[in-house]
Amino acid sequence: MQTPKTIDLHGQPIAGGKFPLICTPLVGRTLDKLLTELDVVLPKQPDVLEWRVDFFEQIDDAGAVMAAARAIKARAGGIPVLFTRRSTLEGGEKIALNEGQVLSLYEAVCASQSIDLIDYEMANDPANIVRVRSAAKSHGIKLVLSFHNFSYTPSLESLVGKFLSADQLGADVAKVAVMPRDMDDVLTLLTATREASKKLRIPLISMSMGPLGAITRMIGGAFGSSLSFAVGAAASAPGQVPIEDLNTVLGIVNQAMGVK
Amino acid sequence: MQTPKTIDLHGQPIAGGKFPLICTPLVGRTLDKLLTELDVVLPKQPDVLEWRVDFFEQIDDAGAVMAAARAIKARAGGIPVLFTRRSTLEGGEKIALNEGQVLSLYEAVCASQSIDLIDYEMANDPANIVRVRSAAKSHGIKLVLSFHNFSYTPSLESLVGKFLSADQLGADVAKVAVMPRDMDDVLTLLTATREASKKLRIPLISMSMGPLGAITRMIGGAFGSSLSFAVGAAASAPGQVPIEDLNTVLGIVNQAMGVK
Repeated sequence: MQTPKTIDLHGQPIAGGKFPLICTPLVGRTLDKLLTELDVVLPKQPDVLEWRVDFFEQIDDAGAVMAAARAIKARAGGIPVLFTRRSTLEGGEKIALNEGQVLSLYEAVCASQSIDLIDYEMANDPANIVRVRSAAKSHGIKLVLSFHNFSYTPSLESLVGKFLSADQLGADVAKVAVMPRDMDDVLTLLTATREASKKLRIPLISMSMGPLGAITRMIGGAFGSSLSFAVGAAASAPGQVPIEDLNTVLGIVNQAMGVK
Repeated sequence: MQTPKTIDLHGQPIAGGKFPLICTPLVGRTLDKLLTELDVVLPKQPDVLEWRVDFFEQIDDAGAVMAAARAIKARAGGIPVLFTRRSTLEGGEKIALNEGQVLSLYEAVCASQSIDLIDYEMANDPANIVRVRSAAKSHGIKLVLSFHNFSYTPSLESLVGKFLSADQLGADVAKVAVMPRDMDDVLTLLTATREASKKLRIPLISMSMGPLGAITRMIGGAFGSSLSFAVGAAASAPGQVPIEDLNTVLGIVNQAMGVK
């Protein structure tokens, strides 16, 4: 097996280098709901929290977003927070901001240092990606450049290309999530993950979504995926399994594979 | 997903069509040890038992083999028994019989009807395969034609060819077990399984062995493998996981995939 690439913060691997990491999404629409969600999620000890800010009703109030980010960070007690506005083009919620406003929000949130990682779609305008990368880099925030396709699974070559693009665009982590139509598509995603993990300098995250792809959330680590999303309180994408189930399967898989 | 192909006995799918089935090996060297093994294994409720008769010290005493087969069948209480002499060329134990004597034993065991399925390596002399197939067929025993490689994983084309050969040679079930050297080999086995499951008329069984391949024992069903071997009391091949663990993972995988 390739040496797994860990996701590092301030020179240290998250969760002591655990592989793969488990990330639970937060999708509350208000700060109150986010804090209630955290009360459910935190006892389940995820390695990373992803705040899907496109679900947040007050996304157009930068002060409210910043206050919520600080509140989540304070409550998270050291668990790294990934900040994500998922675009509607890639499966996210409709929001009241245009892309320029999103960029300003991203810059403000990076500057506040109340988050640890930030996700931006690699399909965005290259100039915007440069702005997000620069904001992240100046404040020690790790940049996840992502690609999602909720309709189908592109070809093997195309998927490997997405991972490589993220690397070339300056990502700290490359993420690819696609929808399978059959189990051949699931194998394509796993094969692309494996190929990319041999070629990339950076860690990567991949999954095949929906029920058919659910196994990739459990065994993707063996093919090079550094992080898997699981349900703490509520799912943010189809096919995510409860964190308890993912922990159980990963424990059995790691033991069977002789991973410590 | 392809409609999974069940393994049937007397026109009925084993274990009511459960997919994949779980088979635990029996490797006791004496009848006493086999019966003790059954005491450990049966409460774990495997769907199939495989008696690896090449481990049996009295394999050169047809009467003793037949008596043991009957004792196992009586104790198994309706759980189908797969009878297997694994050749030393394919990872089995050294035995005191030549191939002609093995064939006579196979014919006698089939005639006794104290077993339900019988495994023979497809690499054997075609004339011998015809004899085993004929003995099995006349007595309503299902024939598993198998291929094992404990050193490496042949190419995708070669693996698909093995599954197809088993079908062409008149097997009721095709089995391929190979050793991976890296995770690419594991993907090759899964891809071959998926391809063969679309081409074959008969059900198939596949696994990638050892620690690297252990996940194929857990998720192979999603790619078309009808049966997985798990440890009840003792392993018969590298990478087999405890039946309790396999049950746990299959439960989570089936729920996530929406399989009833």
